[in-house]
Amino acid sequence: MESLNFFEYSLVYNSLSFTFATMMAATLFFWLNLGSVSASYRPAMVITGLVTFIAAYHYFQMFNSFDAAYSVTNEVVSTTGKSFNVAYRYVDWLLTVPLLLIELILVMKLSKSETVRKASTLGFAAALMIVLGYPGEVADDMGTRMMWWVLSMIPFLYIVFSLFVGLKSSIASQPASAQGLVKLACTVVILSWSFYPVVYLFPYLNIEGAWVAVEIGYSIADIVAKAGFGVLIYMIARAKSEADGYTPA
Amino acid sequence: MESLNFFEYSLVYNSLSFTFATMMAATLFFWLNLGSVSASYRPAMVITGLVTFIAAYHYFQMFNSFDAAYSVTNEVVSTTGKSFNVAYRYVDWLLTVPLLLIELILVMKLSKSETVRKASTLGFAAALMIVLGYPGEVADDMGTRMMWWVLSMIPFLYIVFSLFVGLKSSIASQPASAQGLVKLACTVVILSWSFYPVVYLFPYLNIEGAWVAVEIGYSIADIVAKAGFGVLIYMIARAKSEADGYTPA
Repeated sequence: MESLNFFEYSLVYNSLSFTFATMMAATLFFWLNLGSVSASYRPAMVITGLVTFIAAYHYFQMFNSFDAAYSVTNEVVSTTGKSFNVAYRYVDWLLTVPLLLIELILVMKLSKSETVRKASTLGFAAALMIVLGYPGEVADDMGTRMMWWVLSMIPFLYIVFSLFVGLKSSIASQPASAQGLVKLACTVVILSWSFYPVVYLFPYLNIEGAWVAVEIGYSIADIVAKAGFGVLIYMIARAKSEADGYTPA
Repeated sequence: MESLNFFEYSLVYNSLSFTFATMMAATLFFWLNLGSVSASYRPAMVITGLVTFIAAYHYFQMFNSFDAAYSVTNEVVSTTGKSFNVAYRYVDWLLTVPLLLIELILVMKLSKSETVRKASTLGFAAALMIVLGYPGEVADDMGTRMMWWVLSMIPFLYIVFSLFVGLKSSIASQPASAQGLVKLACTVVILSWSFYPVVYLFPYLNIEGAWVAVEIGYSIADIVAKAGFGVLIYMIARAKSEADGYTPA
């Protein structure tokens, strides 16, 4: 385990708690507002809430795991010998990252065959990206970390390419009031996701506090990519429901 | 950690528990009554409940953190060496204070562009106010505490000014039955929020028990600004729903 000073410990402790609270609040927001979008967009909103719910569960576990790994007495931090379970992030992403792409595809309301095709290919690429990233995250030497980073970037770049070229061509078929939001959602996916491979490389900087920066960087990226992105999906669903003439009862 | 006598310890212990119970009850009140306001005001009520839900979570954590920081034997209070995590209040405010302003803006039902503009500028100012307050709260010397207090007051005064001038001008467009309530809600925001910078300065009094007064002061301010204010938002939403001819099914 990394040895941390009290400031670093507090930073990670509070960012894990903050991220749990944000994810749980976002989940309730998406689910309690189900009635404000038309029935066509409710599955997308249910999945948007699932993503933040799954993330909330994993942040709760990470918070407890972190709390168990360190003990603090009079602001002096020591390790207890228990491990901080890094795998929680990866099992979370394995579930949530394909779902994130599926919520974007569902809210676009493409033809049934296109929805199935895009959801399965992009979902598979996303799962592959996570699986290939994990061995490098837990590797001790930097060469191994780099090799898995490169392998993981292949499905990542495929997804970015698909979103830019494949989904952006479907934007023209969206109602005018939603086009700007859908473009923004695609951009947010690409930008917030690009943050992860950058954070992954922090240990190469070989600076004091790189471990802390990785934990906080991933937490920020998760908030933007899941809760922030979810709010965009909600706004798209609202705009498209209105364009379809839906008024909540 | 502050050393506390049994009376002071009990006061903080019970006020944290009381505030948790109030926040959780308020949350359930807002969400269980969603059907009693028309669809237009439900997102405002959802957010009102989110604010008290997030606060309930943080009071639960603060209660546990306080409980771990002290041990009591035969009414003699001693510190355990564990820290009482003051940051919970700030991460709570970082999430809830922008949401509080958004619930007020949503219940006013301004035009779409005005809603987005006001929600983003006021929300940003609120987040900035919290971020600038934290370094002073954890500072050891009083000069530093004062400097951050002054910096934090700049966005605070901007928000107060916006509510007085900007939002009050929109009051005329509210239905007659809601105008008084909206005015009251603006006043409650300003008065209850003014309580926080006053509590922040309690340590300057340099009296025995200032630490206890800060904890209890913040708890009271939170109850008024979140649960009390939320009830006003609910009453506004009810009055406006009725003015729109809404009758719950």
